[in-house]
Amino acid sequence: MAVEPSNLIHWKDQVADKQARQKAAIPREWLITPVPEGKLNVMDVPETCGVLTHREIDITGVSDVAVLLNKLANAEWSAVEVTTAFYKRAIIAHQLVNCLTEIFVDKALQRAAELDTYLKEHGKVMGPLHGLPVSLKDQIPIKNLETTMGYAAWVGKYAEDDAVIVKLLLHAGAVPFVRTNLPQTIMWGETHNHVFGRTLHPYNRRHTPGGSSGGESSLISMHGSVLGIGSDIGGSIRVPAHFCGLYGFKPSSNRLPTYGVLNSLDGQESVPSAFGPLSTSLSGITTLVRSILDQEPWNYCPNTVPKPWTTDDYTLKERGGGKKLCFGLMWDEGSVKPLPPIHRALEVTKKALETSGHSVIEWKSSRHSEYVGLARSSFLADGSEDYNSCLTTGEPIINSMDPDADPNHVPAFRIPRAPLSAYHVWQLNKERKELRKMLLDRWQATVSQTGTGRPIDALICPVAPYPAVLHGQTRSSVYTIIWNTMDYPALIIPVTTVDPALDAKPTRESFWSEDDKIVYEMYDPEAFQGLPVGIQLVSPTLQEEVVLGIGEIVDAALKAAKPA
Amino acid sequence: MAVEPSNLIHWKDQVADKQARQKAAIPREWLITPVPEGKLNVMDVPETCGVLTHREIDITGVSDVAVLLNKLANAEWSAVEVTTAFYKRAIIAHQLVNCLTEIFVDKALQRAAELDTYLKEHGKVMGPLHGLPVSLKDQIPIKNLETTMGYAAWVGKYAEDDAVIVKLLLHAGAVPFVRTNLPQTIMWGETHNHVFGRTLHPYNRRHTPGGSSGGESSLISMHGSVLGIGSDIGGSIRVPAHFCGLYGFKPSSNRLPTYGVLNSLDGQESVPSAFGPLSTSLSGITTLVRSILDQEPWNYCPNTVPKPWTTDDYTLKERGGGKKLCFGLMWDEGSVKPLPPIHRALEVTKKALETSGHSVIEWKSSRHSEYVGLARSSFLADGSEDYNSCLTTGEPIINSMDPDADPNHVPAFRIPRAPLSAYHVWQLNKERKELRKMLLDRWQATVSQTGTGRPIDALICPVAPYPAVLHGQTRSSVYTIIWNTMDYPALIIPVTTVDPALDAKPTRESFWSEDDKIVYEMYDPEAFQGLPVGIQLVSPTLQEEVVLGIGEIVDAALKAAKPA
Repeated sequence: MAVEPSNLIHWKDQVADKQARQKAAIPREWLITPVPEGKLNVMDVPETCGVLTHREIDITGVSDVAVLLNKLANAEWSAVEVTTAFYKRAIIAHQLVNCLTEIFVDKALQRAAELDTYLKEHGKVMGPLHGLPVSLKDQIPIKNLETTMGYAAWVGKYAEDDAVIVKLLLHAGAVPFVRTNLPQTIMWGETHNHVFGRTLHPYNRRHTPGGSSGGESSLISMHGSVLGIGSDIGGSIRVPAHFCGLYGFKPSSNRLPTYGVLNSLDGQESVPSAFGPLSTSLSGITTLVRSILDQEPWNYCPNTVPKPWTTDDYTLKERGGGKKLCFGLMWDEGSVKPLPPIHRALEVTKKALETSGHSVIEWKSSRHSEYVGLARSSFLADGSEDYNSCLTTGEPIINSMDPDADPNHVPAFRIPRAPLSAYHVWQLNKERKELRKMLLDRWQATVSQTGTGRPIDALICPVAPYPAVLHGQTRSSVYTIIWNTMDYPALIIPVTTVDPALDAKPTRESFWSEDDKIVYEMYDPEAFQGLPVGIQLVSPTLQEEVVLGIGEIVDAALKAAKPA
Repeated sequence: MAVEPSNLIHWKDQVADKQARQKAAIPREWLITPVPEGKLNVMDVPETCGVLTHREIDITGVSDVAVLLNKLANAEWSAVEVTTAFYKRAIIAHQLVNCLTEIFVDKALQRAAELDTYLKEHGKVMGPLHGLPVSLKDQIPIKNLETTMGYAAWVGKYAEDDAVIVKLLLHAGAVPFVRTNLPQTIMWGETHNHVFGRTLHPYNRRHTPGGSSGGESSLISMHGSVLGIGSDIGGSIRVPAHFCGLYGFKPSSNRLPTYGVLNSLDGQESVPSAFGPLSTSLSGITTLVRSILDQEPWNYCPNTVPKPWTTDDYTLKERGGGKKLCFGLMWDEGSVKPLPPIHRALEVTKKALETSGHSVIEWKSSRHSEYVGLARSSFLADGSEDYNSCLTTGEPIINSMDPDADPNHVPAFRIPRAPLSAYHVWQLNKERKELRKMLLDRWQATVSQTGTGRPIDALICPVAPYPAVLHGQTRSSVYTIIWNTMDYPALIIPVTTVDPALDAKPTRESFWSEDDKIVYEMYDPEAFQGLPVGIQLVSPTLQEEVVLGIGEIVDAALKAAKPA
């Protein structure tokens, strides 16, 4: 019997090879010297390190994706200029927060040059994303590039084709330009793996930018990208967006195309993952979703629902144009109390909406833990066989995101469970159907309270009980994972930042749960100062246009409420 | 420890109790005396047995559901009259072909009377199905009635609520009036169980009306109903419709609401079942689908895609109004050759379409058996635990639909398999994704052959390799089950009947497979004479409006082609 060649490779050699090649892919003139070692907040470095020109600082300083696209379409800025500027800033960010995986400068610049030529020759843009650099989480294959997805054994796995979403981005004129870091197994709310290491929060590098799309959130918060694609099976777009002060959007699982992406737990469909955008602006989110749907992605991806972008839904035609909406507001889910800045973000949002003429009614959580438990049971149904099948070259499983953890200690929610039978999964699916029905009925029943003749137009709730925590301290995905169990679209809108003067630590002596106590105890207003806080806005399944349209109204109300 | 009362009940006592109550529910004056025993074709009995009045024969003689609805809306016929007429005819049919399960005359007539009062008081119909009696397969609970689903142990299981689809039928003005028979476990292409026995084909009672929605097909073909709801996980609407000369429609699995229905293999979602209509007319099919979608069923059923009925799709706006369509035609799938009348139905359809100005190109099957095998693996993933959990009072499993079979002999495709793990099911789901992508790509690639600038507008293929076979002789669901694996909507249109002069048995010496040989050998043109033959019309997932709109064109072309 022949020895499998892969058995001869040690995972540490694979990692060393990959890291060396990644390092070599960085142009030397984009290196910062010296890299600031002890500095916690590195947000100012891109504009002070001397690598970017003034014009590049101007270009990468734009937050509103619509503005950037407009300047690209008018040829005020060329695609090569814009791609170069963002690439340089992404490489600067990478040196500070370790956010990138694949770096392919030449390929991206060549693509940008083609777009400039196209615009010159045709006098019009190639598509709605013309010239826009777009970052991609390291699950989204680009032809001829590796996709390691954080596994040593996958080093050297080159893609034979672009994922469908990459093809559609290209067709829309985008410039895929970097891929971004994620945690080993993807099933973590932080970002660390053996191949690329740990990604840091640029506001405070002792904190995590969240996960699993934490490469995206740290990169975008440093303006190394203004639009990226992540994935979310329990909060993996939403928690990083919230931690890093970004807009983030988890659509329903079958609205944007997933064919050709790589995934953890692939084939697990009871509580499926969704791919969606993170951005510095809501215009970035909406433009991305619309530009993909307008290409009829269901003709390329068999999992995508053939439901075109519906402008009437986005403009809230059947909701009076959005003039007088009624929101449900869930303050907490009953097991982990949100920390003061999280609660304040909800209060700020409520007041801003009421000031703008909308109404807000309370939404009491009900049997919340069953929605969370159902998702966890579904994810662990394989007895970890999926993870283990990816660790073929000796790479150890990562049992904690805590840098100081005993590597053999496994936290409770990660303890492997006995594999389930197919029949058991069928019973979970039946339970999920009942849970989905129960929440749908509660949503519909709000029609008696809203005064609008409609059920609540959207639900507002926390994204997590805390802002970005120290590395290894994320505990709880209970506020996000319920919307995966429901498969409801959920939009993250940044609201405020932690302010010790407003967000003092209260005295508490009794706690709702062990996690509640831990979360309370980890809070230190001074240490969390300045970290962003977002809220979550939710609509029923496949109503992406509705939640984005309402998101514009919430965002405008929040901006109007802010002191000048 | 208390003894469970159910353990004291023997299944034969449960069956005897249920059968006695069913018999007692039939009004004595609707009994036929004598019931013709030896007669094979009983299609003439309803109009000759003396139970129906001339007016009732007129009412139940209508095939076009639109015509019937119009007469109800105009109060030319009252809902009570129409319900009485169809109830009587359904009871006549039942005595001949054993098609019913639940019989509830008073409840249905009371409902009909309410509709008549409503029309009188309001001067308008309650909804688009006003006054129409609708039959329901015995999986669809009606409040306060039993749903046995063919299991002895379920005798006495009364529903606490209507299924969502029943609520919406009621809201649309329909009169649910009978429930219809199905096979034990539902997973058969014929219709026989221990509680209600075997359902027969009214054209030839030695033959099966198909299954699993065989109660519906036999009832509707005798005009005991003009519209019924069945379910389909491998052909269970389509094969019965084809066998009995009806229109039948399997939508995508998540287009019409399923919440509240009972099902076999509930929770199995890799290849899910769909609920849909069977009818004497295409207008019945379309009116049913539209009347449900217009009520926004996704507000009541969490599994239903929020995709409104789209008239532009139905009128084929983006396909030139349907003036010049291009069809794919799959003559066979390569393992079981369709018998001569099946092949002729395809030829007749091709010619009719070409005569009407459309074009037809050949569609070669590719890796067809993998689509079939994937579905079977998914259905058997529980190691039969679902079936066994329903046989709690000693009822034996039915291993064959053949009345003369050794009850212990299990046909190959029914042999229980070892239960699969959740991880194994995930791998099947990945395989299904690749199969779905492969067929989608092939479909899209036809754009280079059609000459319309579009891929084929729909695909035409056989429903089964044979017309209605003798009891116990169904072999093969290969022509239908692929569209469950794909989750594509598929419409059955009746085309012709077996004519020994046109459908002679050819000489064949080599065969594609064991099933191919068996199907060839079972064919006897004289014995099959007069049995109906339909074709299957297929569109990509969730394009229900498109396949129904194109169905109108195919149906009209076929009718135009028929000798007057």
